[in-house]
Amino acid sequence: MNIPTGHHSRQPGFQHVGVVVPFEEKHPEKNASIEKLVSLVAADMDRVNAMILSRTGSEVTMIPEVANHLISSGGKRLRPMLTLATAGLSEYEGDGHVKLAAAVEFMHTATLLHDDVVDESDMRRGKIAARIKWGNEASVLVGDFLLGQAFRMMVEVGSLRALDILSAAATVIAEGEVMQLAAAKNTETTEDEYLAVIRGKTAELFAAACEVSPVIAGRPKAEQAACRSYGMNLGIAFQLIDDALDYGGKAATLGKNVGDDFREGKITLPVVLSFRRGSAEERAFWKRVLEQGEIEDGDLEQAISIMRRHKSLEDTVERARHYGSMARDALALFPTSPMKQALLETVDFCIARAY
Amino acid sequence: MNIPTGHHSRQPGFQHVGVVVPFEEKHPEKNASIEKLVSLVAADMDRVNAMILSRTGSEVTMIPEVANHLISSGGKRLRPMLTLATAGLSEYEGDGHVKLAAAVEFMHTATLLHDDVVDESDMRRGKIAARIKWGNEASVLVGDFLLGQAFRMMVEVGSLRALDILSAAATVIAEGEVMQLAAAKNTETTEDEYLAVIRGKTAELFAAACEVSPVIAGRPKAEQAACRSYGMNLGIAFQLIDDALDYGGKAATLGKNVGDDFREGKITLPVVLSFRRGSAEERAFWKRVLEQGEIEDGDLEQAISIMRRHKSLEDTVERARHYGSMARDALALFPTSPMKQALLETVDFCIARAY
Repeated sequence: MNIPTGHHSRQPGFQHVGVVVPFEEKHPEKNASIEKLVSLVAADMDRVNAMILSRTGSEVTMIPEVANHLISSGGKRLRPMLTLATAGLSEYEGDGHVKLAAAVEFMHTATLLHDDVVDESDMRRGKIAARIKWGNEASVLVGDFLLGQAFRMMVEVGSLRALDILSAAATVIAEGEVMQLAAAKNTETTEDEYLAVIRGKTAELFAAACEVSPVIAGRPKAEQAACRSYGMNLGIAFQLIDDALDYGGKAATLGKNVGDDFREGKITLPVVLSFRRGSAEERAFWKRVLEQGEIEDGDLEQAISIMRRHKSLEDTVERARHYGSMARDALALFPTSPMKQALLETVDFCIARAY
Repeated sequence: MNIPTGHHSRQPGFQHVGVVVPFEEKHPEKNASIEKLVSLVAADMDRVNAMILSRTGSEVTMIPEVANHLISSGGKRLRPMLTLATAGLSEYEGDGHVKLAAAVEFMHTATLLHDDVVDESDMRRGKIAARIKWGNEASVLVGDFLLGQAFRMMVEVGSLRALDILSAAATVIAEGEVMQLAAAKNTETTEDEYLAVIRGKTAELFAAACEVSPVIAGRPKAEQAACRSYGMNLGIAFQLIDDALDYGGKAATLGKNVGDDFREGKITLPVVLSFRRGSAEERAFWKRVLEQGEIEDGDLEQAISIMRRHKSLEDTVERARHYGSMARDALALFPTSPMKQALLETVDFCIARAY
């Protein structure tokens, strides 16, 4: 059976396929946990959550409805946690970091709402996508509302430099998404081109989330750059693991279905590697399923089998480890502290998600 | 023939209907022109246009393509002209007004791009809508890019107060659009509810565009409030005339087709007035065409005929005149000057568009 491109009907045989994760051998990050980070920022995070709740309020009732559908759906809130943690690392003593963290989460939520329209997604974080429940219109407009609120909070903090970093991030994120659009369904995308996409669409917000805290704390340029570099490389690693998970995670953990990227014709690193390493026959397969969108029963299993043959998933995780190492090294100039330790372990945690 | 709701097929008999404008009797603004304003801000506007061109640039080639499709399509650029004119009125001597004016135009363009996705429009400013040519995705993302660039320019100007005004405007605009979404296809919308929608979706950006200039010029609060009030009331008048034009303008001047609002089931003031003043039979007509979206041949002509019967278009223009008067009076505290004269005449010009 053919599924036309862009029409994401879910076939029962496709959902929740119990694919065996093919990269179980060596995973040094096995016991890494995010708990240390969570507990160190817990008090601040309560304030961020209260801020988020109060700033989604509007007399226009549809706005809090749509916003909270997504915001309350249990995302990890990793990005605002990073803003809070780097504020701790920077020994920041004001309370601007709370508003900046909430602004970062709003920017992220706005991106998700707009992404769903772009991807024509049916699911998001294990829940029905807002665009299905309220329509594309509401997703676009509530995203715009949240972006506006994010900027208002930044303005209240009053740091022009933080505003500069986050507004620049907003444009870079949009550029990354447009790049992805242009690269969509092009199996000849190179690894470099793919990296440029995920630097924009994912890593830039991680980088900005980490950079603003030392900036408002008035720390030296070198520390600002170090935090930015930590965020950027962590963001790249995070996205690469997401890419691998889409071909081998469990739907329950991931909050979306295995094979979503595949069905949407998204070119991610496992595909880029498999295509380059593949036979003529395999390339024809990738072109048929991802470029023409002619997906038949068993094609996802076939894709995973090709990836296994070329070790594309293992190597995607290896690439993620490389960026993870860069993220860890970026923090070297900070003295040992519980917060630094928690940030280092967060890198391992992001990679351990692959298991 | 029935047209299903939300599916905006254009019937040949519907396009460019040469409807006779039914309110020719008295129009004191007949000879009003925007030429005075245009010539007074011409030098600054050249700088704004250069700024707009440079800030739509991106290595991601689809971005300038989509952005320039809309930006170069000959909008009047009324909003940035207002920022420049109020800067003149405020005797501002820096050059922040150029970036703020460009930011205002980018915010407006982003709104148009996102509106097209929301309205499922096929046409915009007499050209094929970007969403038809490049897809909804590109419209959403390039809109996001332009919003980001708008904020970057504001940050460069460095006035936190101007940033506050424009970021608040961004959220109010989105709120107005969501309100419109919630009111869509509800013929029982009251005039007050409708006014709240257009204050948000249209007038707020006019108000912000006029307020930021006295703010960066450091003028007294009373002058800031006066400029804001001028913009707000001008914006309301402008939108009301747009509403009237949709039932009686010429497609060539308007840049979109007569009857667009009607076909999209949009509730505007001419409809609100006609529904309240109408017979049971007429109300059934409005419910059928606007709520159920069952539009048949001749229905647009029928709608215009009902509006004529109840003088709904004349009275929409009368309401616009009321807000126009408020806009003019708001400027009373400024001494006579060519710039003030140009701003006063701009009010008349906006109303004269109805003829």
